[in-house]
Amino acid sequence: MVGGGPGAFIGGVHRMAARLDDRWELVAGAFSRDADRARAAASELHVAPDRAYADFRAMARAEAARPDGIDAAAVVTPNASHHAIARAFLDAGVHVVCEKPMATTLADALDLVRAARDGGRVFVLTHNYTGYPMVRQARAMVAAGEIGAVRVVQVEYPQDWLATRLEDTGNQQAAWRVDPAQAGPAGSLGDLGTHAHNLAEFVTGLRLEAVCADLSAFVPGRALDDNAQALLRFRGGARGALWSSQVSPGNENALRLRVYGEKAGLEWSQEHPNQLRFGPLGEAPRTLARGAGGLRPEAAAATRIPAGHPEGYLEAFAQLYRDAAELVAARMEGRSPDPLASQAPTAEDGARGVRFLEAAVESSRRGAWVEAALDP
Amino acid sequence: MVGGGPGAFIGGVHRMAARLDDRWELVAGAFSRDADRARAAASELHVAPDRAYADFRAMARAEAARPDGIDAAAVVTPNASHHAIARAFLDAGVHVVCEKPMATTLADALDLVRAARDGGRVFVLTHNYTGYPMVRQARAMVAAGEIGAVRVVQVEYPQDWLATRLEDTGNQQAAWRVDPAQAGPAGSLGDLGTHAHNLAEFVTGLRLEAVCADLSAFVPGRALDDNAQALLRFRGGARGALWSSQVSPGNENALRLRVYGEKAGLEWSQEHPNQLRFGPLGEAPRTLARGAGGLRPEAAAATRIPAGHPEGYLEAFAQLYRDAAELVAARMEGRSPDPLASQAPTAEDGARGVRFLEAAVESSRRGAWVEAALDP
Amino acid sequence: MVGGGPGAFIGGVHRMAARLDDRWELVAGAFSRDADRARAAASELHVAPDRAYADFRAMARAEAARPDGIDAAAVVTPNASHHAIARAFLDAGVHVVCEKPMATTLADALDLVRAARDGGRVFVLTHNYTGYPMVRQARAMVAAGEIGAVRVVQVEYPQDWLATRLEDTGNQQAAWRVDPAQAGPAGSLGDLGTHAHNLAEFVTGLRLEAVCADLSAFVPGRALDDNAQALLRFRGGARGALWSSQVSPGNENALRLRVYGEKAGLEWSQEHPNQLRFGPLGEAPRTLARGAGGLRPEAAAATRIPAGHPEGYLEAFAQLYRDAAELVAARMEGRSPDPLASQAPTAEDGARGVRFLEAAVESSRRGAWVEAALDP
Amino acid sequence: MVGGGPGAFIGGVHRMAARLDDRWELVAGAFSRDADRARAAASELHVAPDRAYADFRAMARAEAARPDGIDAAAVVTPNASHHAIARAFLDAGVHVVCEKPMATTLADALDLVRAARDGGRVFVLTHNYTGYPMVRQARAMVAAGEIGAVRVVQVEYPQDWLATRLEDTGNQQAAWRVDPAQAGPAGSLGDLGTHAHNLAEFVTGLRLEAVCADLSAFVPGRALDDNAQALLRFRGGARGALWSSQVSPGNENALRLRVYGEKAGLEWSQEHPNQLRFGPLGEAPRTLARGAGGLRPEAAAATRIPAGHPEGYLEAFAQLYRDAAELVAARMEGRSPDPLASQAPTAEDGARGVRFLEAAVESSRRGAWVEAALDP
Repeated sequence: MVGGGPGAFIGGVHRMAARLDDRWELVAGAFSRDADRARAAASELHVAPDRAYADFRAMARAEAARPDGIDAAAVVTPNASHHAIARAFLDAGVHVVCEKPMATTLADALDLVRAARDGGRVFVLTHNYTGYPMVRQARAMVAAGEIGAVRVVQVEYPQDWLATRLEDTGNQQAAWRVDPAQAGPAGSLGDLGTHAHNLAEFVTGLRLEAVCADLSAFVPGRALDDNAQALLRFRGGARGALWSSQVSPGNENALRLRVYGEKAGLEWSQEHPNQLRFGPLGEAPRTLARGAGGLRPEAAAATRIPAGHPEGYLEAFAQLYRDAAELVAARMEGRSPDPLASQAPTAEDGARGVRFLEAAVESSRRGAWVEAALDP
Repeated sequence: MVGGGPGAFIGGVHRMAARLDDRWELVAGAFSRDADRARAAASELHVAPDRAYADFRAMARAEAARPDGIDAAAVVTPNASHHAIARAFLDAGVHVVCEKPMATTLADALDLVRAARDGGRVFVLTHNYTGYPMVRQARAMVAAGEIGAVRVVQVEYPQDWLATRLEDTGNQQAAWRVDPAQAGPAGSLGDLGTHAHNLAEFVTGLRLEAVCADLSAFVPGRALDDNAQALLRFRGGARGALWSSQVSPGNENALRLRVYGEKAGLEWSQEHPNQLRFGPLGEAPRTLARGAGGLRPEAAAATRIPAGHPEGYLEAFAQLYRDAAELVAARMEGRSPDPLASQAPTAEDGARGVRFLEAAVESSRRGAWVEAALDP
Repeated sequence: MVGGGPGAFIGGVHRMAARLDDRWELVAGAFSRDADRARAAASELHVAPDRAYADFRAMARAEAARPDGIDAAAVVTPNASHHAIARAFLDAGVHVVCEKPMATTLADALDLVRAARDGGRVFVLTHNYTGYPMVRQARAMVAAGEIGAVRVVQVEYPQDWLATRLEDTGNQQAAWRVDPAQAGPAGSLGDLGTHAHNLAEFVTGLRLEAVCADLSAFVPGRALDDNAQALLRFRGGARGALWSSQVSPGNENALRLRVYGEKAGLEWSQEHPNQLRFGPLGEAPRTLARGAGGLRPEAAAATRIPAGHPEGYLEAFAQLYRDAAELVAARMEGRSPDPLASQAPTAEDGARGVRFLEAAVESSRRGAWVEAALDP
Repeated sequence: MVGGGPGAFIGGVHRMAARLDDRWELVAGAFSRDADRARAAASELHVAPDRAYADFRAMARAEAARPDGIDAAAVVTPNASHHAIARAFLDAGVHVVCEKPMATTLADALDLVRAARDGGRVFVLTHNYTGYPMVRQARAMVAAGEIGAVRVVQVEYPQDWLATRLEDTGNQQAAWRVDPAQAGPAGSLGDLGTHAHNLAEFVTGLRLEAVCADLSAFVPGRALDDNAQALLRFRGGARGALWSSQVSPGNENALRLRVYGEKAGLEWSQEHPNQLRFGPLGEAPRTLARGAGGLRPEAAAATRIPAGHPEGYLEAFAQLYRDAAELVAARMEGRSPDPLASQAPTAEDGARGVRFLEAAVESSRRGAWVEAALDP
């Protein structure tokens, strides 16, 4: 693991998620660029002192050289460093599990796509919402034609925690998100909108063609958007709308996707992730439940406990680590991976996300539709 | 009443709504342009034979001349005739309750605005969703500053009943809605989107400044949109998104409004209209209920029965008839009407709705933002 | 109408409900025992002065003697007088629509059963929740065997408005409900529990066999229960539980019924009455909606407006008046009534309700099961 | 761990739960009574061969003698063996985490209470629903007086998976649950009702005084109840009702608790565990959310990830392992444990649960109220 010293939020999530299915063990880390802190963190996390690094390049070199070196590196540092770190491990022949976004520019994103592809390395991007069983159920239903050709996609991700100048109160999570130097070219759209974009593409299998966006910074003094609305056009004719917001009171992490096809509709909400509403045209809508009979194998494979016992965010996150374990094992064993594990978001997905962001920012600036297609 | 012969849907709704509060009596009507049918309908509706007309102009003249002539005319014919009928009664000095849209062109709409204003006649447009108690509660809360300055408005009105070519099956309700000659320049946006636009302006008190829309006709052979998405900019800086759809399976009449201000958010759904979700920033969200203590007078005045006993669509519709009764009574008595009754949608509101439609259609055609402001 | 002077709650509800479908006209009344008040109320309600009575017996005689006399009398006085008034009109040959409970003793209830039966008069008891379309849908589904033999019935009706001594504040609605002289032998169980008992029997078609109840008076000084829990045994082996409460904070009128059979379950909540949850064993649960396609004729016949436009309490109440109109018309025309109208609660249903109350009160006093069957 | 060989459901849950917070490591086990199977399971679970036992008594002895012996034993075998196994480890001085029920007779349960108490060993009973953050929030609110003195408790736990003779299909989970020899004296009440009883006592802090129950076996041929309803009386005067069912179609694991006090009500549902509804008398009900600001320390301490990112069943289960880790560490370090960890269910709680079961079974048999108090 690179980053994720004690106290960092997302590092702890990655560790719990990796632990859940007992497929990974944390054996090395560059938890801090300060050598003392790195060693202290390693000790607290039960990592041997000789595998506690202060420099990710040193870690990549040393671990690659060890016979018992790491199988994969988890990159959980701030956004701006993702590209360099992931690249270092890929170059050293180490598989990578990388926090989103994979890069802050399209060029860097495409560079990682090529590096992973050319080196034959696994690159899993933790767009974690794709790990929810009912999200995979939805994707499988769309792919199987259960809702017919998709016509309309409504996706949204509102929050409220940045409705005031929280960045002035010493809150570090807030501070970096509103700073273009650390967060990149977009605020709410980068932090939340890319999850929404990814989820829409993941479930529908559609690819974005063009976007018309309107980014706003409502809280005085903000350089980046804290609210964004966008119209979406997908290849093949489907139409959509996307909304991300950090300033909508009463919303915590209200990621929600609705997909309507010729024959049926699907609705899913992250805050109640164990249910999927399925509305076949002309019939009473049904509530499909995680773990229940009759679900598709894609959902069943991502399910740990029986119906009615809710799984949540950590389990969904753990699913990507379980997928990554299978993908890495398959590479090491020279076999094809379980196709179910191949659903984990890839470097290509990440690059499309970066392209979406760039196009949306440009669209909002110009007040016009902008092409957003990318085939990395 | 003009239109609304037995069998017509909305005419029956108007009659039930008018009856509920015992403020109106149906005493005359032009229920059909066929004299025999008109008489038969009148008989069935307990209207005296001498006040059953086959021609609305004859009705306007005759009723205006009677000492016991009608106080107001309800216009419930197909859209294209609204302007001519409403104009005839206004010219005869009769107050008007008119189905939406008031006209199919902006010129006609503004003509009615002027006619009502110059003649000093009441003109109530039955944007019926504004009659729900919790919609009035929301409007009053926004006006009182309880959510702070509005930043974000999300409004949507999806249905699914036109997801196939229902117009080919002899369904008259479907047939006129997909026919530009009868429905005007927009399909889902005209039928549903105008309600959504009106509701957003009613609750927020904001006025639309510009719109960027994307209209789609998904069902093969349709000339008008059956799905529309739009970005909205309001005067003063608030941003919004609007979605109307007739092709989203699993949705019946899922009109829903969400408004987010600096201090709090409000969420209301037409299918569960007795509740209003109020989310103050930093506090647990609350479910405000129609009839409960602590609501604003605007909500209490639109409430007939105690909390926990749901009121619905007809009661909300009846509220506009109750408002109209007070407005007409005030004119007849030469006094100021109860301010609470003055919330009923006016000709000016209707004209802004027609302007919104025109701007959205143009925006979609040009793929660009279009100004939509109107101060009639 | 007897009772229901301006200001009384339930009288106004009856009038709105009777008006909605235009099948009834209010032409006579004994709105008060004070002659001046009776006349004033009549005037306000557009009733002719010569048909404003101060005495219900005088009204029964006079109206029975008029060629244009009333078709039916609505009894909306306090509980203790229901029997005498209903009996007077039945004796005069006038049909009766009566507020629940029909009587405060089983003897009086059975007396009305016989009077209505022997005189061939219609007696409709306004257990109004039976008028909801989705309640009728549930009943029809059970009767058609869609859920198989019923095993378990859970019914509850909690409120919170009497959680404090509201009766000390001058609130008349509270005062009579906690007074045994006016309310009869039970408090929450009489006011709410009888609705729950009636709804359970109405939907399941089952008849109560025995009850084991525990009545509590939580608010200090109360003579009657303000909370009651009971175990129910139905003929044929089904088991149930019933809960009524006036002291459960956060509940308005949360009447809710759940019925589970061998093959499926049904769940309905009065506060969201347009939906019915249907859970077939081994399949995803479905949300059936009022007005949607595929419902049974019993539901369709009780529906006024399309799906997605909510109907509420008044419409359900109006359904009983519509049923009563058909039942009365059939008697007057010497024909069989529409079977759909015959679903309206009868005197027999009322008598069973009174028996349930008596048995529950005795059970609680003795701390034992008590037989509750009645076949009037 | 004793029991929980690969394939057993609850053993896997215990392992995931124990792993989540990195406070426990699985180092020894008696995963099967068959020596070969025990070794194979150990190998699969990364347990050293010399610590794979086929006999729990041998394991207790050997581990107690090792300097690096286990800190605690997790007992996840079928119910009938819980007492003997737990007793063996307590006698060897090893702390115990035990699946519910702790025993099948009250005598055995009280024996474990004494053994743990006299030996000064930690005994944590995995009534796992008590580990949910919002359950702990509810308990803390009641304890702090936020809802006033408790008056009414409604608790229920319906399922539907045993609505047919699943036990005839080879389903082992079904087979043991309907067999008195393996499941003890009660079916649904033992499997589900004890969770409901425990949850009610945990949240309210009240102690059961008497019960009046009605147990039914609806599926032909069942010896044990598959549905049970009960009236509850708590010390101090609160009244309650409890319902457990395995035959109610449309229910998965619908454990739900509602508690009403003098000042407010609380409602919690296991299938949406991140929310707690709080209804203060006379105010709009609020939805408290896990992870949000303003919650009590008891809830915050049981929370791993921020608001809006749902935690579920495994996290709640893990909480008991986290509590157990703290309790064991405190014993080993000779200090008082964190009071927050002392919320984990104890042997005393388990004994009260066994007493509740016995009393309910007797009550149903006799058709009368039965005392149920126990102060172990």
